[in-house]
Amino acid sequence: MQYVYLVTLLILLEYLVIGYLVSKARARFKVRAPAVTGHLEFERYFRVQQNTIEQLVVVLPAMWIFGLTLNPPWAALLGLVFVLARAAYAYGYIKTGGGRHHGFMFGMYATIALLVGAMIGTLKALF
Amino acid sequence: MQYVYLVTLLILLEYLVIGYLVSKARARFKVRAPAVTGHLEFERYFRVQQNTIEQLVVVLPAMWIFGLTLNPPWAALLGLVFVLARAAYAYGYIKTGGGRHHGFMFGMYATIALLVGAMIGTLKALF
Amino acid sequence: MQYVYLVTLLILLEYLVIGYLVSKARARFKVRAPAVTGHLEFERYFRVQQNTIEQLVVVLPAMWIFGLTLNPPWAALLGLVFVLARAAYAYGYIKTGGGRHHGFMFGMYATIALLVGAMIGTLKALF
Repeated sequence: MQYVYLVTLLILLEYLVIGYLVSKARARFKVRAPAVTGHLEFERYFRVQQNTIEQLVVVLPAMWIFGLTLNPPWAALLGLVFVLARAAYAYGYIKTGGGRHHGFMFGMYATIALLVGAMIGTLKALF
Repeated sequence: MQYVYLVTLLILLEYLVIGYLVSKARARFKVRAPAVTGHLEFERYFRVQQNTIEQLVVVLPAMWIFGLTLNPPWAALLGLVFVLARAAYAYGYIKTGGGRHHGFMFGMYATIALLVGAMIGTLKALF
Repeated sequence: MQYVYLVTLLILLEYLVIGYLVSKARARFKVRAPAVTGHLEFERYFRVQQNTIEQLVVVLPAMWIFGLTLNPPWAALLGLVFVLARAAYAYGYIKTGGGRHHGFMFGMYATIALLVGAMIGTLKALF
């Protein structure tokens, strides 16, 4: 499972970098806490972070179950695809808004592959 | 732990379906990203998703600790109650807003039962 | 890992208490669901909860990997620092807004220590 742990930590680091960019954007665009709206560019940064949480709660458990029941290196590799796709998503969203779609879709493919692998591994363990 | 893995995956699938409904609602009610407000019906879909994340971060660790320290099948069964209660919550919230309360409460009972079981299992392992 | 489980459950309980305070604030400041804005004091409660989720998705996996690969009691102890720092953060945010910074920073130090320990443990397991 070391590979799964390693990619888990990469995902968390990427997520913390995104969180740091949000706090920088909050200062730059003068959006005072607790507000999270009021400036379109800030809202993009904020939505990148929120959407990344929405994905993390699926990707991490799916990757762990895949690793625990089927194949840790493959689970880690798919997790790595997610990390790269998320970077493309964040870059595309912040730059142009519309530029987020490719990164989003590649991340979703990795997520679905992780879920399918986790399901196969779980069913193999059950029967 | 296979039962716990299986119910974990069911929870993640239910959550992805909710996320899909949010993206459909975004298009239907013409709420352009990054905005998450501006149309009451869209906001209901969005709140269902957000509230489900708020629950997931509790339910998944509690179910895993319950399974690891006490009894995996019972942990999985309570997780299944959560899945059904969340479906009722989502349906009730989207249809009428006020119709969400029963599903919310049943999900909360399952969550509390998972936490209590996890605490009992952890204390048994400690002493 | 019992110590890590115990602190995980403490973190989840603290988070549920925060969620309970948000629902009380929703009633008190008359912010009707699905709205999450419209009253500054409610928004502070709500941001405390949201920011706590944003932290939980990092703290819990990092603490578990630290515990699984390096040292469960130390992982649990750092998790406990996070619990205390979060309480200070919540109190400071709700009272004055600006009073949240110390709690936030101490929680972040605990988070970074957990990530560093998890990374050291993972690299030791890999090589």
